[in-house]
Amino acid sequence: MGDPMRGNIMQQPLLISSLLKHAERCHGDVAIVSRRVEPASGDARFHRYDWRALAARTRQLTNALAGLGVQRDDRVGTLAWNGYRHVELYYAVAGSGSIVHTINPRLFLEHIAWIINHAEDRVIFFDLDLAPLVSQLLPLCGGVRHWVLMSDEQTQPSVDIPHLLRYETLLQAERAQYDWPALDEDQAASLCYTSGTTGHPKGALYSHRSIVLQSYATAMPDVLGLSSRDVALPIVPMFHVNAWNLPYTAALVGFRLVLPGAQMDGASLSELFTREAVTFSAGVPTVWLALLKHAREHALKFPALRRCLVGGSALPRSLMEAFEAELGVRLQPSWGMTEMSPLGAVNSLKPKHDALPPAQRQRVELKAGRTPFGVAAKIIDDDGQELPRDGVTTGALMVQGPWIIDRYFKGETSPLVDGWLPTGDIATLDEDGFIDITDRAKDLIKSGGEWISSIELENIAMSHPAVAEAAVIAVAHPKWDERPLLVVVLRPGAQTRREQLLAHYAGRIAKWWVPDDVAFVAELPHTATGKLQKLKLREQFAAHRLPGVEYPA
Amino acid sequence: MGDPMRGNIMQQPLLISSLLKHAERCHGDVAIVSRRVEPASGDARFHRYDWRALAARTRQLTNALAGLGVQRDDRVGTLAWNGYRHVELYYAVAGSGSIVHTINPRLFLEHIAWIINHAEDRVIFFDLDLAPLVSQLLPLCGGVRHWVLMSDEQTQPSVDIPHLLRYETLLQAERAQYDWPALDEDQAASLCYTSGTTGHPKGALYSHRSIVLQSYATAMPDVLGLSSRDVALPIVPMFHVNAWNLPYTAALVGFRLVLPGAQMDGASLSELFTREAVTFSAGVPTVWLALLKHAREHALKFPALRRCLVGGSALPRSLMEAFEAELGVRLQPSWGMTEMSPLGAVNSLKPKHDALPPAQRQRVELKAGRTPFGVAAKIIDDDGQELPRDGVTTGALMVQGPWIIDRYFKGETSPLVDGWLPTGDIATLDEDGFIDITDRAKDLIKSGGEWISSIELENIAMSHPAVAEAAVIAVAHPKWDERPLLVVVLRPGAQTRREQLLAHYAGRIAKWWVPDDVAFVAELPHTATGKLQKLKLREQFAAHRLPGVEYPA
Repeated sequence: MGDPMRGNIMQQPLLISSLLKHAERCHGDVAIVSRRVEPASGDARFHRYDWRALAARTRQLTNALAGLGVQRDDRVGTLAWNGYRHVELYYAVAGSGSIVHTINPRLFLEHIAWIINHAEDRVIFFDLDLAPLVSQLLPLCGGVRHWVLMSDEQTQPSVDIPHLLRYETLLQAERAQYDWPALDEDQAASLCYTSGTTGHPKGALYSHRSIVLQSYATAMPDVLGLSSRDVALPIVPMFHVNAWNLPYTAALVGFRLVLPGAQMDGASLSELFTREAVTFSAGVPTVWLALLKHAREHALKFPALRRCLVGGSALPRSLMEAFEAELGVRLQPSWGMTEMSPLGAVNSLKPKHDALPPAQRQRVELKAGRTPFGVAAKIIDDDGQELPRDGVTTGALMVQGPWIIDRYFKGETSPLVDGWLPTGDIATLDEDGFIDITDRAKDLIKSGGEWISSIELENIAMSHPAVAEAAVIAVAHPKWDERPLLVVVLRPGAQTRREQLLAHYAGRIAKWWVPDDVAFVAELPHTATGKLQKLKLREQFAAHRLPGVEYPA
Repeated sequence: MGDPMRGNIMQQPLLISSLLKHAERCHGDVAIVSRRVEPASGDARFHRYDWRALAARTRQLTNALAGLGVQRDDRVGTLAWNGYRHVELYYAVAGSGSIVHTINPRLFLEHIAWIINHAEDRVIFFDLDLAPLVSQLLPLCGGVRHWVLMSDEQTQPSVDIPHLLRYETLLQAERAQYDWPALDEDQAASLCYTSGTTGHPKGALYSHRSIVLQSYATAMPDVLGLSSRDVALPIVPMFHVNAWNLPYTAALVGFRLVLPGAQMDGASLSELFTREAVTFSAGVPTVWLALLKHAREHALKFPALRRCLVGGSALPRSLMEAFEAELGVRLQPSWGMTEMSPLGAVNSLKPKHDALPPAQRQRVELKAGRTPFGVAAKIIDDDGQELPRDGVTTGALMVQGPWIIDRYFKGETSPLVDGWLPTGDIATLDEDGFIDITDRAKDLIKSGGEWISSIELENIAMSHPAVAEAAVIAVAHPKWDERPLLVVVLRPGAQTRREQLLAHYAGRIAKWWVPDDVAFVAELPHTATGKLQKLKLREQFAAHRLPGVEYPA
């Protein structure tokens, strides 16, 4: 047989420029509000315009990029917070056929330099407060042809940077006329490196198609449920997997976008939530803890706010309960990976769950979420055999879909197994598509041949009133191979003892799961994005000796 | 420059089988409820199962199709109402690489036969009550190899059909094991003919990609806003542009699907709305009029019902107001075409409209709708120049997008102009993407949501010996929205009566196409160049009252 018969449908590629054109045509007067990075006071602290103005400036920017010699496929790096110029870069760079490479400015200097050189960034745009970082990067990144300060001609950075270009100066010289090219939808659009795994950071290179498809999925009622009536504030940084795709979904849906700039503390966020009547937000648990603390101290409520998406780490039950009870806001767990662009699963209950007894319903509400159409998930055993989707059996979680990478940027080997990406998570799946992450494959504690979930032990510890933050890691045990050690940070002013914390587990968990010891620390090690660094913690406690245990000499 | 750099993303085609696999994996226990076409009483009038059972039977059906010799690209016809077996056919035929061709059983016999022969249908599946139609089609459609009654072995059709096959008998012989093939997403999946334009009916051949993309768009909050909490009843027939894509969107979202079988009268629909706590429905204005009448007569309310999508014809204000006031249900206008699969626009207000004075807001609420991402629209003047999107200027409406056809099935010429499809509608556009249809450029009458070709009716009238010139125009009808009025100029000396002219249509056209009335005039209005001025004629007969019809005061 020859080629199959094709549908008689227009060949219309899914492009990032199409998102922008749609926003300009149909949501032209919808606002994008940004907290400025440059010093300002009063209302001038906020920049405010609409998609029509954004689109015009974005076309000027494409002309400026061409003037800087940026060509198709060239990588253009950003060292920037969540703000309107960063959104313009998203659309201008990708829309014109180049690749926007968002860089996490909180990484170690050497990591950043390595990433810039590996990506071969030709131009780097950076926010004002990151000028000192840039001056340190200059000698390490010889391949970068232009460094562009995201500001106007008047603003002076705190350090001197030779041959510095300025964003507004570049734009002023350009016309707002530009015809977006008809690109191939599989063409590369954006690049994001993931750290935290072993070895060098690895790049995930997204395509126009993967971003547009994910934007559709993101907006759906059972996923983020975003409409033109929403006001969305992504706290998750735009350098962290495209702020979970929200700057793209905003153009598709036409919701109002509120961008917090460099200030992600509780007070600054509270101000924006109130000023802009934010209805939806997204960030890691650490951020919600800070917001809750600020709201408590100042007796604040956010009446417009309905839901906050929680990703990056598991959502502690105590935090979900506090948000619900004190702020009337649902914290909605989600799960994803840089390798998944990042949407993997979002927790939205089905009607069948409404009738469950509260405790059972809460168990569902705390799961990582369920997969939308576009993400296929399965769990497998050590032999690669698929395991039942019964909500009980745990296995290695594998994923497949049109916004999941099949290899890393410049990677020579494929990470896929039989066409599926191993996530490195251990999980259960149920018949509704809910994923329950029981542990990171490397975080599990294996005691006497049986698995113990450190996440579950951490959640119980977090429910103790004296505990601010908890981590459970495996420490060596001569008999059981590994045993759990609880490491805690106490709340300011709180007091407790080892025995009291361990007694807190009684009746909540099998006896053999109870940690063998408690270590009190002033703070736990985190990554730049707020993720707990278990590896570092395990190194720190590598020589820990459990009480009452005889160790071989 | 060589090929552009591609994103490192899995090649995962958008396939109809992926929708079904997702539904089986993540919505396996969600119900599909159908009113049976076969005679039954009590609860047995309803068939009830879930996506898991549907998927298993669909795989059996693919094996049965192979057994009937159906190969890739073959067209498989359906003459069927909205029911579970029809859904199985949607997924089995397209999922296995063939093309499901849904046929409107209400067309004129010769039209149906012409369509079947033009499509080259190899097998036709039909519902029990359509057996008499099939027995008339048999001698006209020699290319059809198998006729399959959608019923079990025991059920006897009212007429004898030689070599009749039965759906359930075919399924029983087959295994439920089947591996869905990895098709090209641009492959043809489904075929639907549109009547009403001049000449023969024309086929719109949809692809897997176009159907899946439209399913994403359909579900979004500002489009139909469908979640797993919805219970959706498509009254729009599955032979009418895939019931506006709802059987596909159901698999993607996991809402409950309620299918009304052959009974679309007010009483039958009321029963289903109540029994199944339907939250969302979709159909033409005629259906909503019938439902409203029944609800009034029996003092019914449908407390679960929130929104009903109205398509096919413009929504009369009085109907919208009555639904809102008496049933508390929002009738939501929408606009589309067979050529658009059919989603073009859905009316959902933006927050800025909330503050409008009631009369102005209502003017927006009655517009055809606004375009979702995936539909680009523009209006042009006679020279093809784009006109302003100001909500005032009218022009010829043109559309473009990844679920819009670029030619008709077996068509040799493209209907596109500069890559855009002319819709045949005259409309305004505004800055929010709202389309307001002001007139129709094409010579068509829309009766009960279906097209009637005025040209075809004129040609038949002209074939009557007494007629010198004939024009057919739409006049308003309280139930069917529009009905054809025949306006004739008699030949000098010729004599005839209304009844004789109408009798001339018998056997030449479907009964519901026959004009409702005849007006005799001395001459028809023409332009200087001799073109018939339909607009002037419509104005002339704007107040025409059809005999035997009750008009609201």
